[in-house]
Amino acid sequence: MSVTSTVEFEVRWGECDPAGIVYHPHYLDWFSVTRMHLFRNHGAPYMASFHDNGVVLVALGVECEFRKVVRAEDVVRVTAELLDLTRTRMSIEYRVTDGVGEMVATGRTRHAFVDKQQHPINVAKKSPELWSILTRMKNAK
Amino acid sequence: MSVTSTVEFEVRWGECDPAGIVYHPHYLDWFSVTRMHLFRNHGAPYMASFHDNGVVLVALGVECEFRKVVRAEDVVRVTAELLDLTRTRMSIEYRVTDGVGEMVATGRTRHAFVDKQQHPINVAKKSPELWSILTRMKNAK
Amino acid sequence: MSVTSTVEFEVRWGECDPAGIVYHPHYLDWFSVTRMHLFRNHGAPYMASFHDNGVVLVALGVECEFRKVVRAEDVVRVTAELLDLTRTRMSIEYRVTDGVGEMVATGRTRHAFVDKQQHPINVAKKSPELWSILTRMKNAK
Amino acid sequence: MSVTSTVEFEVRWGECDPAGIVYHPHYLDWFSVTRMHLFRNHGAPYMASFHDNGVVLVALGVECEFRKVVRAEDVVRVTAELLDLTRTRMSIEYRVTDGVGEMVATGRTRHAFVDKQQHPINVAKKSPELWSILTRMKNAK
Repeated sequence: MSVTSTVEFEVRWGECDPAGIVYHPHYLDWFSVTRMHLFRNHGAPYMASFHDNGVVLVALGVECEFRKVVRAEDVVRVTAELLDLTRTRMSIEYRVTDGVGEMVATGRTRHAFVDKQQHPINVAKKSPELWSILTRMKNAK
Repeated sequence: MSVTSTVEFEVRWGECDPAGIVYHPHYLDWFSVTRMHLFRNHGAPYMASFHDNGVVLVALGVECEFRKVVRAEDVVRVTAELLDLTRTRMSIEYRVTDGVGEMVATGRTRHAFVDKQQHPINVAKKSPELWSILTRMKNAK
Repeated sequence: MSVTSTVEFEVRWGECDPAGIVYHPHYLDWFSVTRMHLFRNHGAPYMASFHDNGVVLVALGVECEFRKVVRAEDVVRVTAELLDLTRTRMSIEYRVTDGVGEMVATGRTRHAFVDKQQHPINVAKKSPELWSILTRMKNAK
Repeated sequence: MSVTSTVEFEVRWGECDPAGIVYHPHYLDWFSVTRMHLFRNHGAPYMASFHDNGVVLVALGVECEFRKVVRAEDVVRVTAELLDLTRTRMSIEYRVTDGVGEMVATGRTRHAFVDKQQHPINVAKKSPELWSILTRMKNAK
């Protein structure tokens, strides 16, 4: 098993649509926030360790399944777990639960490490310190 | 083959992130706009034929793969194609290309027909007129 | 002096633009979240006391001045204060400060009470209970 | 009189809230799109002439008044007009009308020219070519 981080979100009015429920693209935004917490909680705050360091974690693909609808002022918890890590790629899994612990959504994102010109990089070469943190995250029990 | 619709988008400044490229959740927003054009262009404007009619097309799942990055003021074309249709479900496929015709992203969304209380409905029973339009869309050559 | 509520926000990656700073429309979204906390903290959760109750607090006008830029992962605190209240209108003031207490932005929103068809209502008549809570908020010392 | 540009927007489903109308922060996003069209239509595309050129047009303040609500699939036209221009500042006015020409909203944004580190700049010194285009826009009859 790999490391996880959990973030609590109160659903915003502006995240909901005329059907009165969360407009589904916002789940990907919650994944993004939780992914950044996952890095920060384990020693690699995104802005300092990736962005300012010339490492961009670009999205290659996303998937999300929606099980239960939530609406404004509901509280959800999003847990991100590092699934796979190589020197060029990373994938993360997400679970969204509501206030009574029921599954609201699940998802996965796949990413590549690129530079600011969007060229693929070997993160272990580009930033050995970041690579060391990421491998510790991957191998944590 | 089923029906398609294509919408042109000029990438908005506010759709881009600090990496200077489109923040990926916005692709799902473009899919949503294009899906609504697909319905309207074939006789079923979403607000009149679904929303005001008590039919909600809730998202069950989304997938998206990103091939090429685009930035503010770039123009992309999104094509939506109706893939599958039953009395309770629908799925749609999307292709995003840039100004030189290169593939930027591809995606799929799966939906269920539900009522305003989010209960599953048989759309053919709930709205025979809408069902008739949707089946014509599915069977168009 | 009237009642206030303060909410802490961690700036989201997706709230920032290619200049690397918060895209300014998102300040209005933070105001919206903080306004809803203001109501809830004083006994009138928006979804239960307004939305489900047929009372819509529509925006008539907004103003915002930006003093200092913030970026992703920065933490800001937004304080909302009820300024004016009548049976048909309400106005609220906002102050945004950063982690060192410096002013980031200030703003005001003006609202009218309307029904679901967007017709103006007298909130004291439409919902005496909500009016009672709002007047207590206005008169609190 | 100064130059203007007008952009037509079809209201997106995701721009609307549970009250079924446009969530008001999105008006500022439409202003942003129309402002960029204003520059591009007069010879200064934002990405090439400002962003890639090291000139950031940061927002100092915004105001918006809402007159009439619109909902998904409605079409609005936003007109931006350059109001004031100095070597360090600029202000722009916006009018939003609906399909029957009725006023939906009006607004103003004030901006400063800054560099990528958010330091104020004299745009006439930093980029004489851009300054020349902007002054032509201001003095156009």
